[in-house]
Amino acid sequence: MFSPNDHAMMHRAITLAQRGQYTTAPNPNVGCVIAHGEEIVGEGFHYRAGQPHAEVFALRAAGERAKGATAYVTLEPCSHYGRTPPCAEALVNAGVSRVVCAMVDPNPKVAGRGIKMLQEAGIDVAVGLLAQDAEALNPGFIKRMKTGRPFVQLKLAASLDGRTALANGESKWITGPAARADVQRYRAKAGAILSTSATVLADNPSLNVRWASLNPSVQQQYPEHELRQPIRVIIDSRNRVTPLHQLIGLPGETLLIRTQADTQTWPESVQQVLVPATAVQASIAHPLGQIDLSALMDTLAGHDINHIWVEAGAGLAGALLAAGLVDELILYQAPKLMGSDSRGLVDLRGLTAMAQVPELIISDVRMVGPDIRITARPIHN
Amino acid sequence: MFSPNDHAMMHRAITLAQRGQYTTAPNPNVGCVIAHGEEIVGEGFHYRAGQPHAEVFALRAAGERAKGATAYVTLEPCSHYGRTPPCAEALVNAGVSRVVCAMVDPNPKVAGRGIKMLQEAGIDVAVGLLAQDAEALNPGFIKRMKTGRPFVQLKLAASLDGRTALANGESKWITGPAARADVQRYRAKAGAILSTSATVLADNPSLNVRWASLNPSVQQQYPEHELRQPIRVIIDSRNRVTPLHQLIGLPGETLLIRTQADTQTWPESVQQVLVPATAVQASIAHPLGQIDLSALMDTLAGHDINHIWVEAGAGLAGALLAAGLVDELILYQAPKLMGSDSRGLVDLRGLTAMAQVPELIISDVRMVGPDIRITARPIHN
Repeated sequence: MFSPNDHAMMHRAITLAQRGQYTTAPNPNVGCVIAHGEEIVGEGFHYRAGQPHAEVFALRAAGERAKGATAYVTLEPCSHYGRTPPCAEALVNAGVSRVVCAMVDPNPKVAGRGIKMLQEAGIDVAVGLLAQDAEALNPGFIKRMKTGRPFVQLKLAASLDGRTALANGESKWITGPAARADVQRYRAKAGAILSTSATVLADNPSLNVRWASLNPSVQQQYPEHELRQPIRVIIDSRNRVTPLHQLIGLPGETLLIRTQADTQTWPESVQQVLVPATAVQASIAHPLGQIDLSALMDTLAGHDINHIWVEAGAGLAGALLAAGLVDELILYQAPKLMGSDSRGLVDLRGLTAMAQVPELIISDVRMVGPDIRITARPIHN
Repeated sequence: MFSPNDHAMMHRAITLAQRGQYTTAPNPNVGCVIAHGEEIVGEGFHYRAGQPHAEVFALRAAGERAKGATAYVTLEPCSHYGRTPPCAEALVNAGVSRVVCAMVDPNPKVAGRGIKMLQEAGIDVAVGLLAQDAEALNPGFIKRMKTGRPFVQLKLAASLDGRTALANGESKWITGPAARADVQRYRAKAGAILSTSATVLADNPSLNVRWASLNPSVQQQYPEHELRQPIRVIIDSRNRVTPLHQLIGLPGETLLIRTQADTQTWPESVQQVLVPATAVQASIAHPLGQIDLSALMDTLAGHDINHIWVEAGAGLAGALLAAGLVDELILYQAPKLMGSDSRGLVDLRGLTAMAQVPELIISDVRMVGPDIRITARPIHN
């Protein structure tokens, strides 16, 4: 069904789609190539929500040469009138004779309707080429569309013996500059950065993307004036964050997750979002249980957040893991040993048998400067 | 000085030397190739203490064809009458015209004398080809010859958050079968396995090499009837190990490290070795401080132990690290999270600033089955 040339063209479309990885949120990354055989006549990718889709850029570049061409798209062309007219219609109007999609759009508003629209216009449509690579472009978008919840990436950093701070709290710096630049890159890709008031009160962090801290290779494809700040989401069940905390005044939106709003004057960029508290029993099990984390994820999905990058302490990390809400763990390990008196990485309570221990599958291990980065996915039974 | 052919021949000699890696202790691994240009006329490696050296096997294979040949040896040929006559003499007698050594023998009984013996016989000698690879064959032998102390490899195994057992002590199994087979391979290479009476009393372990547990690739080059058991060294400052503990009855020697001998009847394979106790202050700092670990290393070197593989608990691990006695850390990490209540990996006391934290340099990270294996060397300031 797919020729070697089809593979090459779709591979190109996927590479194009990646160029939007820091900017498209909450939209998916999509790339498009229009070709006659081996000759590319137009290409494009989605860059930012509100701007044209990948197909539109590619069709513009192709002009009259789109007629009789094959369009390679990493995601099924849309069929609905959103901020832009449907791309399936644009492909029909341009007279392409074949469309190859890497995957069906999991968005229930599309979900095969784009393909149907093309087929009904007599266009030959093929689906599934390099589907896995295309899925890897948009883990957050796909998960939210399919399950109604965001993709949650939990960042942790520790010594080789799993410690985050000495007994007296000292912790700067455990990992090196290369790992910290890598964290900036993950933040830049996320729709939101999730943390807690405990972290805000302890460290008064910025929780933003600092362009100057990105690796030069990232900076090159992501100019400073295009910087998109992920939404900061702070779990603050006891209303402890104040308008004076550093992150409140920084560019970008902040959501304060609370069970009750306060009456302070907040900047327009800050919203107090109410999420139900958990049952009393759960909140005894872990102090962060006051906010129902599953309800929080539903709420954040409702704010069009696809992809959450979590940077917090052992409490939230353990609570998210125990609730089965972590999709991917990104663990940085510094080549240090801090000893058994030092502070632990993940609070998990009541484990009495190895069979109860959360297990993961490691998908990647690599050096980042002198540190190790482990990527793993929890096994949800 | 060295041609591409020289490189190829020395590379072959190093590969040959590796075939003795499970059996030569306390002797070094050595390989030898005798060649006329690209034509190999004889090769050999040292297999077991008491058996002929690499050069002897290679010369036997070459016979008359050694005349005028080049001999490639991974270690300077010996110059002294040990269990075998000096290899330098044998090379001279065989009429080789050139000898290439990867490195000088650090053994003070040799230390350049073998090279001198060859040169005085009119043989062209070149030294230093692939020296780093040759050194990697014998970290223990080289360290003991140069410093009078063995090379210490500390094995640790934990979850991703650095935990070795749940709060209630449950720990079987943290790592998987592939990691456990890998541990068997490291044991098989070591001159001794070091542990503590605490481990013996808790687990009653065998601390031996179980041939059936080695990977098939290791078994293939290491037949069961050639199995060499590393010496078991048990730190037992309170004379708690008894003749009834499992490892006492197993094939292979056992050294019980004590400050005072007891009067029990021990099998011939068991020796009580007296090592001085540390000053009282140190023994308060960690309970294992009762044995002076530096003095222990001197004593073990005196028993011709080059290479020690440590398998013990967080106490000995921390004490060895704090004393600067660890040359290499081999850390297995299972893809699990066990939580902050679980038991820690390394006991290190009194750390109050990140600058005091032991740092390491990671030399290798790889997957072993579903687990990670990290190899790292402590930075000794």
